[in-house]
Formats: sequence, structure tokens, C-alpha cells
Amino acid sequence: MAFRTDIEIAREAVKKPIQEIGAKLGISSDDLVPYGHDKAKVSAEFIAQARSKTDGKLILVTAINPTPAGEGKTTTTVGLGDGLNRIGKKAMICIREASLGPCFGMKGGAAGGGMAQVVPMEDINLHFTGDFHAITSAHNLLSAMIDNHIYWGNELRIDQRRVVWRRVMDMNDRALRDIVTSLGGVANGFPRQAGFDITVASEVMAILCLASDLDDLQKRLGDIIVAYRRDRSPVYARDIKADGAMTVLLKDAMQPNLVQTLEHNPAFVHGGPFANIAHGCNSVVATTTALKLADYVVTEAGFGADLGAEKFMNIKCRKAGIAPSVVVLVATVRAMKMNGGVAKADLGAENVEAVNKGCANLGRHIENLKGFGVPVVVAINHFVTDTDAEIEAVKAYVRGQGAEAILSRHWELGGKGAEDLAKRVAEVADSGVASFSPIYPDDMGLLDKIKTIASRIYRADEVLADKSVRDQLKQWEEAGYGHLPICMAKTQYSFSTDPNRRGAPNGHSVPVREVRLSAGAGFVVVICGEIMTMPGLPRVPSSEAIMLNDQGQIDGLF
Amino acid sequence: MAFRTDIEIAREAVKKPIQEIGAKLGISSDDLVPYGHDKAKVSAEFIAQARSKTDGKLILVTAINPTPAGEGKTTTTVGLGDGLNRIGKKAMICIREASLGPCFGMKGGAAGGGMAQVVPMEDINLHFTGDFHAITSAHNLLSAMIDNHIYWGNELRIDQRRVVWRRVMDMNDRALRDIVTSLGGVANGFPRQAGFDITVASEVMAILCLASDLDDLQKRLGDIIVAYRRDRSPVYARDIKADGAMTVLLKDAMQPNLVQTLEHNPAFVHGGPFANIAHGCNSVVATTTALKLADYVVTEAGFGADLGAEKFMNIKCRKAGIAPSVVVLVATVRAMKMNGGVAKADLGAENVEAVNKGCANLGRHIENLKGFGVPVVVAINHFVTDTDAEIEAVKAYVRGQGAEAILSRHWELGGKGAEDLAKRVAEVADSGVASFSPIYPDDMGLLDKIKTIASRIYRADEVLADKSVRDQLKQWEEAGYGHLPICMAKTQYSFSTDPNRRGAPNGHSVPVREVRLSAGAGFVVVICGEIMTMPGLPRVPSSEAIMLNDQGQIDGLF
Repeated sequence: MAFRTDIEIAREAVKKPIQEIGAKLGISSDDLVPYGHDKAKVSAEFIAQARSKTDGKLILVTAINPTPAGEGKTTTTVGLGDGLNRIGKKAMICIREASLGPCFGMKGGAAGGGMAQVVPMEDINLHFTGDFHAITSAHNLLSAMIDNHIYWGNELRIDQRRVVWRRVMDMNDRALRDIVTSLGGVANGFPRQAGFDITVASEVMAILCLASDLDDLQKRLGDIIVAYRRDRSPVYARDIKADGAMTVLLKDAMQPNLVQTLEHNPAFVHGGPFANIAHGCNSVVATTTALKLADYVVTEAGFGADLGAEKFMNIKCRKAGIAPSVVVLVATVRAMKMNGGVAKADLGAENVEAVNKGCANLGRHIENLKGFGVPVVVAINHFVTDTDAEIEAVKAYVRGQGAEAILSRHWELGGKGAEDLAKRVAEVADSGVASFSPIYPDDMGLLDKIKTIASRIYRADEVLADKSVRDQLKQWEEAGYGHLPICMAKTQYSFSTDPNRRGAPNGHSVPVREVRLSAGAGFVVVICGEIMTMPGLPRVPSSEAIMLNDQGQIDGLF
Repeated sequence: MAFRTDIEIAREAVKKPIQEIGAKLGISSDDLVPYGHDKAKVSAEFIAQARSKTDGKLILVTAINPTPAGEGKTTTTVGLGDGLNRIGKKAMICIREASLGPCFGMKGGAAGGGMAQVVPMEDINLHFTGDFHAITSAHNLLSAMIDNHIYWGNELRIDQRRVVWRRVMDMNDRALRDIVTSLGGVANGFPRQAGFDITVASEVMAILCLASDLDDLQKRLGDIIVAYRRDRSPVYARDIKADGAMTVLLKDAMQPNLVQTLEHNPAFVHGGPFANIAHGCNSVVATTTALKLADYVVTEAGFGADLGAEKFMNIKCRKAGIAPSVVVLVATVRAMKMNGGVAKADLGAENVEAVNKGCANLGRHIENLKGFGVPVVVAINHFVTDTDAEIEAVKAYVRGQGAEAILSRHWELGGKGAEDLAKRVAEVADSGVASFSPIYPDDMGLLDKIKTIASRIYRADEVLADKSVRDQLKQWEEAGYGHLPICMAKTQYSFSTDPNRRGAPNGHSVPVREVRLSAGAGFVVVICGEIMTMPGLPRVPSSEAIMLNDQGQIDGLF
């Protein structure tokens, strides 16, 4: 078989009507709200009725710290789901939606790869069912209502220098990062410094992904802090009276989107918060609904396990009252080699020594994940250049850590290539050995929560937080926000805050640059290092090559 | 029957599955791309195949100059469509999509009213099928690519002071009218003055509504002038290499949206360009496709006939190669009274004298419309306070103008109330008396085209255009744009450029403030007076009252 690109494979896929996919989960066509013939939202009524069912097993797919070699976390999530179905299990997949903006920059798709993809991949990577557009609209309605409130007399006495609610756009547009608005005279309002973030960085996105239903959604939207007064008292979205209309705009976006894998297995693709300033997981509604409909639910978390899995456990599972039965930690031989010091250009040559050296990163993640009381299975996502000796080196290392590593060839072979992985994952999930708990309790102080993550996950010696940061945390505790979990925003490339420190660094410090309160989402964001919330386009953006070909198909998307 | 609001009527509507509505037009369910159970797009393949069929009759609904009393143009369009179906004709409706932003300000819905509505009205007025979001994305991708091009070295030598392509958002947000972008240092680009318009004002919207197919769409997108160099030579979207990706983003948005009236008759709701800086009609694709599927197609144009119908004839019909068989001119007794000098508070009292006086506005429109070679039927959109004497006064006046006025009660009674109107309109359409032609030829000079509209439609004595405007028009003629039609942007409240001059003013001047070239849409915009392309929210925006009620229904939308 000649090499085919992801989009070629996706195009050739013979999809089943989405009603057939829904039927596998017991969803009647009346309870599916179709978007074309191959996508559908699940009705709120159906979801409410499903609440009484018992939960299936939750399987989290996470990864080592990402390297330029790529780990294939989404691909493994999809492949494992297909593998579980192949071995006769009733399984479904829950992943995040793709952001539109980065597609026009240089990012690859977010629908898996090779023979382990969800389809229709073009739609999933473009407008899909409009969820992100709805989030953009809801966010910017609040922004417009804030400036409108100030314009008409500012009854709430908002300090115009302390409006913290920015605007969003689902586009990589660096020109909008830092702007001055309301120029041009009296009719346009009071000039002030403002800016845009990319839509996935919106607190509305995080809220949509954590809300349990529309009532909870509206309450959380109302809780958003949009500005402060001169006396530093907060002004909420509720005070602006925007929460109702925002909820109306998000009504459909709250419903999970059902699609299918290349092997016609069901997948929810829903929500997609940033994995730095937010928690980086698909929606709670999708995951908890999937648990009612399938015996095994495979889901993923953003970035490496130090960020994504930590937040999945400490934020999403805590808030949603769910617990993983097993964690699948994705690694590749190539990534082990890069962690072991090999340059990307030299990854083609066998280098068992480098693999052994790089495994330290993998080992640290295994240890960390066990700290949540959850068993770990390592999935070696196979790449054509991997040698038997290299694969054996990873397996031996993982055995030494008291876990098991299984080679998986889903990228090449689809579910068939993931059967071994699926069997073992199902066994571990069914064994009942998991005894999940977050690594810090709700009632721990905010600074102590940060220190707990830094010491237990990052293995840092210390957290550096100056007085203003500590005072701010204390102030929030006094204002009743002390029970919130922490959302760490640091580089995804290292356990430390230095992206160049690969492997399993020790003895480092975690400097806290800034803390932000996401009162609606319900977490405190702790920023360690530069965090970009509005990307830019590269010198030659991929949008220059994206176009319809003579057959009306989309070329250049990936 | 107790009084019910539009939204209450719409909510209680028992809708048929959209596949049943499609079947009435011969569209199989495979050729319908569903968006929920009550909305669908028509596939491009079906539209291409339908091209060989013969055209039905085109009926344009337009109105007198709008007054605060309201005329009910969309309501009449829907009611007439239902009326035609009731008398046994195969008729369908083509109207514009609603803009999201104004819904949160104070604008009413755009889906008709009373018993003459298209449904689902909440969806139509909110995200609908995502067309406007797609337009926003395509527009802003081009914006981002322009600034990105400058950032990475500006190979095209764009004069940063002469970037004419702004950004758009589907929101009433006055703070974004006039902004400075790219602040914050080197990494954010070169600071420059910029701004946002509302999405319906985007040239991309006008292009989508005038393009005949995806190839034509991409060509027109490439033709957009985004900036000028220091030597004043234009830089096109094609030079930025954005046209391909923009077309991909607009692929689905190009397909007309099928919905139903309260009486289950088919309606295309597609596109919605501004009626001032653009041509204010639904899409050419929707209208031309409808003409292949139905024997009678009822469509509308924005604002009063001096703006909307003039552009429908001179821009849309000319470009699409279509011609109306009859024009329905909507008037109300209340609007006649306001034109006759009665204040809004006094409209409840009978005042035949004021009606007679106000009819001058109506008469002028009848005369103008006949100038296009098209017969006119006046529809008196009935209101409960209208007296027989007042109605008879309008009828008598219209008879005196060589036309006929018919009372229509579709708001109260739906299609049944519009049967008389439908019968007469069908008769006139079938009579073959129409002999349509635009009022100026392609090869007339641009300034002469403006003068032709000013004298023949506005009845102005003169067009005031200073040397810079005249030089600009001449320059465009030399650059090959002389064949384009004119898109007038002036107040909708008067034939003149002074909104306070109601009735049928004479002897006035038309001052041209500015001219703009919409090279992609294919018209020259002539701006006479203040034109607002980004509205603001009122002191108490309707968004404060929009929310989900206990039954999960949307309250406060209208």
C-alpha cells in the first residue's frame, strides 16, 4: 500500500450514517440532532435521562513530555478505542475539538492520524458544529456589554483600567494581542488598553467544559469576574446581566458532538480548552454521558502527564466526580531517543543507549501517575524506524518500574494494531486495582496546593512566589475562593519551567510569575513563564496552500 | 384568541421534518444536508443539476421608505408565499439571514411576524447554520494574513497607512470601531490604526451573496482590494494568497438554507448583506436555485424601494441574469399617516387627510418601480387600528397611479389573509407585461450612473461630488472598473439624503462624501451621509433580558 496522508485516508473513509453510530449507543435518531449526515449532537433530554444508568470504566490517555518527534496521543486514544471494540468491548472515545486558528498556521489536525482517525476530519478541523463560534460570540457579547455599560454611565463604577475581560477570536492574529479600543471620539466610548486571545483560551471555553448542565453553565458564567472597581472589589458577568444571553448563545454548544472513527466506532468530540491557562480536557458533559453509554470510555488530556493528567485528576475528575480505572501513558522510541539527547535529524539510526537514557522521563511520569492511585499501562506508539532492540529497551525499563509497556500499531493498522494494548488495558481496568484520589484536598491553602504539585509532580525543590502573589492568594482565600483547585500554566516540554530541561530534572525552582482567578471555571491559574494566549501565523502560513481542488475536496489542510 | 408574541407563535408551531419540506421541491433527503430536524442546506450537486430546468416567476417585495411605525416587508414576503401556496401555486420564499449582533441590541427578529413567519425563528435569529460565523472567519483570516505579511517583511510593499481591509465581528460593539492594533512591542507587529465592522458589512458577505458558484466565489475573493502601495497600486487578496483558504471556510456557507413557514411552505433563508454599503438582498444562489424549484419565488430587498429595489434591479438582477415579473410594494396606513405628518403617539386615531398627504411617498415609489419596466401591486399590510376610510383612501390613491392596492391580513391570518394579494400578484406575474431592464447600462460612466440614480430615483436636482471623488471615479474607470454598477449608501428614511424629509421631496442635492471600490463584490459604493458599519448597544440592551426560562425556552429574544 502506497503511503497515504491523513487527509487522503479520511477522504476515502466510507462513513456510516450518524444514526447508525448513535444506535450502537442506544441513542434513537430523534435524540440525535444531525449536522449533516455524519455528525450529530445528542439531545439534552437524552442526556438527562441517561443519568440514572451505571458508569462504565474511564481510561485516560496521557503522554510523556512532548518532543518535536511527536507522540501520537490522540491517535492512540482513537486506536485504543477501536482496539477495544475489536476485542468485543463496548467502548467509546472522548476527545477535544480542534481550534480553527492554528489550522491556518502550521499545526496538524486534531482528529488522530493514519488508520486511527475520527471523521469527517475536514469538518472537525474547521467549523464542525459551530461550538467554538458560539463560545466566541458569548465571550464577545460580554465584552461588548462591559464597554457598553461604561459608555452609558458606568453605574457599577468599573475602574476602566481594571477591565480584565478581553475579547476572543478563533484565529492566529498577533496584531490583536495588544490594542487600544474606543478611539475616534465621544460616540465610540472611553479609550482603553485591551486585547484579544484565541477562543480556546476563553474562560467561557473552560466553563463550557466543566459545567454539568445549562443551569450550572449559567451560574458559572455569572461568576466570571470581568473587572474591578477602584476599591478592588470585583464586578461579575452577573452584574453586567450578560449571563442569560450568554447561556442562550451556548445552549446548543453544550451538547456533545457524536462522530465515528474510521472503523465506525462512536466518538464524542466536544470542547477544547487550552492546556496551559485552562485544564485541557474535553467536556465533562461528554465524558460523563459517554460513561453512561459505553462500558469503556477512552479519553485524553492535553500536553504531557505533568500538566494534562495532573489537571485531569485534580480539576476535571474532582469537579465531575469521576475517576479513571487505568491510565495509558503514550511514549515513542523516537521521543525516548530525543529525551536521551539525540537530534531530530539522527532519529532514524538505532540507538539503544539513548533510548535507555531517555526513559527517565517516562519513569517519572509512571511514578507520578501511580501517586494518584491509578494503575499505568505504557503504550509504545510504533513508528516504522523503531528497531526490536529499541522497543525491547523501553519494555524492559517499564517492567523495572513495576508496569508494562505494550507495542501498538494502530497508526498503521487501526484497531487491529491496538488489540494487545486493548486487552491489557481492559484487564487492568476490570481488575479494580485503581483507588483514585487527587493529590491535594479542597481545604488545603492555595499556596500549599501549588507547592504540592511542584514537589510531587515536578519534583522541584521550591516554589518562588513574591509577596504580591502570596498576598493575592491570601486575599482570594479570604474572599471564599480558597477551596478551588490550581491550574498550572508552564512549559509542556519539561517537568521544570525550563523547556530545555528534558528527561527527569531535579533540584529546580518553580517561579510563579502571576496568578489569575478563573472564578467561573472554578480554578486559580498559576502562571510560571511566558504563556501565549494569542498565537501568530508563521512566515509561510499553511492557509496559503489550503484550497479546494478540482474535485471540490479540501487540499493543504494537513 | 389572546394576543401572542411572535416568539410564542413560533414556539407553538408544529414543524414538519425538513425532509418533507424538501420533498415538496423535489429535493431528496440525500441532497439535503440537515442541521437539526428543521433546517437543511441544499447540496451543491443538486443545485448544479437543477440548472437545466426552466425558471419560475420572480416576485420582488419592497416597501415605502421605512417609518418607526414599521411596514412588515419580511412578514408580507412570507405571507404572500403562504398565500400563493394556499391558492394552489407552487411557490417558495427567499429571504435574508438575520445578523446576530443587533438581536442583543434592540432590533426585532428577521423571520417575519404574527402568523407569517419562518421557523425555527430562534435558530434563524441566532447561530442558524453558521453561515455568518463562516463569513466572519474568512474575513478575519484575510485580515490576519495581511498583518502577518507585513510582520514577516512586507514583500508586497504594502503601505501600512493604506490597509483598507478591516476586521469584522457579528456583534454591536462600538468600542471596536476605531482601534490601534499591534501594540506591545516587536513580537506583535507594526502598530497601525484599524477597526472592526459588523459581519453583515463585510465585502465577503456581499461576495457570497453575488457569487454564482464556488469557482466564482474564489475569483471574487481574490479580487478584493486589501491595501495600496505608496504608488497607490492596489494589493489584492490573491496577492496575499488568502483566496483559497477563504473559499474553503465558505464552502458550506455557499449552500442555501431551507426552512419552512408556519404553514409548512419552503423558504430559503440565505445571506444578508447590509443594505447601505452593500446591495441588501439574499443570495443569488438561493434565488436562482429557487427559480428552478418553484413556479413563483417571492423575495425581498432591504430598506425602502429607493435603496433596496433599486439595488435589486441594478445590481442583483443585472449580475444574476434574472428579472422580476412583478413588484409588490408594501405600505401601511400607519406609515402613510406618519409620512403625512402624524406623530407615532397619535397613530391610533383615524386621519384620512394625513393618509392622503402621506401617499405621496407611495406614489413616487410606484412611478420609480415602473421605470424598471415592471408592474407594481401595492400590498396594504393590515393593522388592527386601520379604518375602512383610511384603507379606501390608500386604494383610491393607488388607483390614481394606475396600479392596484390590495389589503392583506397575513399577520393576523397567515396565508389565508393573503389570498387576495396572492391571486392578483400571480395574475400580474403570469400576464407577461413585465419588460425588465436596469435603469443604466454597464458602459455608462460611473459618475453618470450616480447621476442617473439621483435624478430618476431620488428626483434630486444635482449630485455634489468634489474633485477628489471625481478623480477617484475616473481612476477606477481607467483601471477597468468602469463597467461596475453603483451601490448607493444613503439614509433609508427619505428619497433625499436628509432623513427628516419624508414624503416625496424635490429639488434637493445628493452630496457624495466618499466612494469605495468593492472590487470582489463588483460594485462601487457611493456614500452620501453618515454610514454606520459597526452599531452600538443601547443603554438597556435586549441581551439583559434574553435568557432560558424554566422550560428551557428562550425568553426575551423578541
